[in-house]
Order: sequence, then structure tokens, then C-alpha cells
Amino acid sequence: MSNDASPQSHRAINLSKKFELFSEQWQPKVIAEMNDYQFKIARLEGDFIWHDHKDTDETFIVLEGELRIDFRDGAVTLKAGEMYVVPKGIEHKPFAEKEVKLMLIEPRGVANTGHESSQRTAQNDIWI
Amino acid sequence: MSNDASPQSHRAINLSKKFELFSEQWQPKVIAEMNDYQFKIARLEGDFIWHDHKDTDETFIVLEGELRIDFRDGAVTLKAGEMYVVPKGIEHKPFAEKEVKLMLIEPRGVANTGHESSQRTAQNDIWI
Repeated sequence: MSNDASPQSHRAINLSKKFELFSEQWQPKVIAEMNDYQFKIARLEGDFIWHDHKDTDETFIVLEGELRIDFRDGAVTLKAGEMYVVPKGIEHKPFAEKEVKLMLIEPRGVANTGHESSQRTAQNDIWI
Repeated sequence: MSNDASPQSHRAINLSKKFELFSEQWQPKVIAEMNDYQFKIARLEGDFIWHDHKDTDETFIVLEGELRIDFRDGAVTLKAGEMYVVPKGIEHKPFAEKEVKLMLIEPRGVANTGHESSQRTAQNDIWI
């Protein structure tokens, strides 16, 4: 290692600090990529639309607050430190009574509303 | 929905509770899959070996404690709530002075020691 190389030359991604960079809801921000997958963080509050992703599973990890994901046959409620993988092709509708902060993991290019178009449809590939 | 369907018929994966199910170190446990990727949790303490993964990136998310990942040209230190994606082909060596609890995300079938064989080589696909 040369004298120029910092021992901390690689930078950690701090989730809390990333959330300080934006306040808008329903607009996922990309914070990292792994192969062709993206890690996105988002603030959600209120009701999303029913949708599914025909070609991929989708992972939700709640970091703060509480998220309910409704399915046609039930629901799951996720608190901070809890996660769930929605299988591909399964219709689901996220809902948060109060703002929830979460991380989404899914392949690059997946639309947040699946093949539905809505006011909730967000632009992809916004990095912070 | 029939009367038999529980409104919480889908089960959240609680990371803290999953850690209560094992105490051994350096033995990642699978807690979820997303397409052909696995979410694994592990307890690490001490030094790992230098290794790389020729074909895939590897994601580290620290849940409790502190993890240092050494690279040939530096290092990154991850605290709880921080993550890092090690690019494919990059040699790295995890180290934890005290036990760290973390989540790993990578494709199913990736060996924890890459193409190196060591006492640290763990069995894959152990679900909890």
C-alpha cells in the first residue's frame, strides 16, 4: 500500500445518512448495485396500488416505521428489522399508516408499479 | 377472502429472532431467497481469509457490531446500519474484533471462501 492510500479508501453506505438526502415519498433512490440488482431506499406513506412484477421477486426490508403489504389472500406487516420477499407474479399493495422508511432490492429496471401505470409510478435510476 | 384466511397469513422475517436460532460463528444461515439470490445472516469474529468471487458481487449489511473489510488497496469499516457491495473479482478479507452480526446477499451457490479452501469454508444452503 502506498502512503497515498487511505486505510478507509472504500466508503461505507450509511442508510440513515442516505435518508437525510431526500424527504419526498414514493420516490425510491438507488444507493447501491450488486450485479444487475439495485438497492433502493424509499419513504412511503398511505396507499400504493395493486400491482405485480411478472418476471421477478421483490424484497422489502423495513428500516423505520411499519409497512403492511396486502395480498389477495391476506397480508404481512413488517416492522423495523423485518423483511419479506414478494414472489414474482403475486399481486400486492403496500400500505403505511405513517411514514415508513424501507429498502427495496430488485433487478435494475423494474418499474415500481409493475405493468400498471399510475400517479405512483416513479422514475427509475435516481441515485443518491 | 374466506373466513379461514388469516389477515397475517404471510410471515415477516424478523432478523433479530433469526439470530436467536444459532450462536455459531462463520456459518451463514439462509433466511430468504429472491429469484436466484440468497439472504444469509452470520455471526463473525476474528479474521477471515483473503478470497474473491470471480463471477459475482457480494453485499454485506451490518446489523450489530462492526466489520472491517480489508482490500489490497485499503479497507472499509461498516457499523450497524451500513452496507457495502464488494465487486466481483476483488480480493477481500473480512475482520471483526468483536462478534458482528451481518446479512450477506449473493447468488445461491456462492462459496463463502470463493475458490479458496479453508477451515472457514462453510456449508451452503443451511436454512433457519
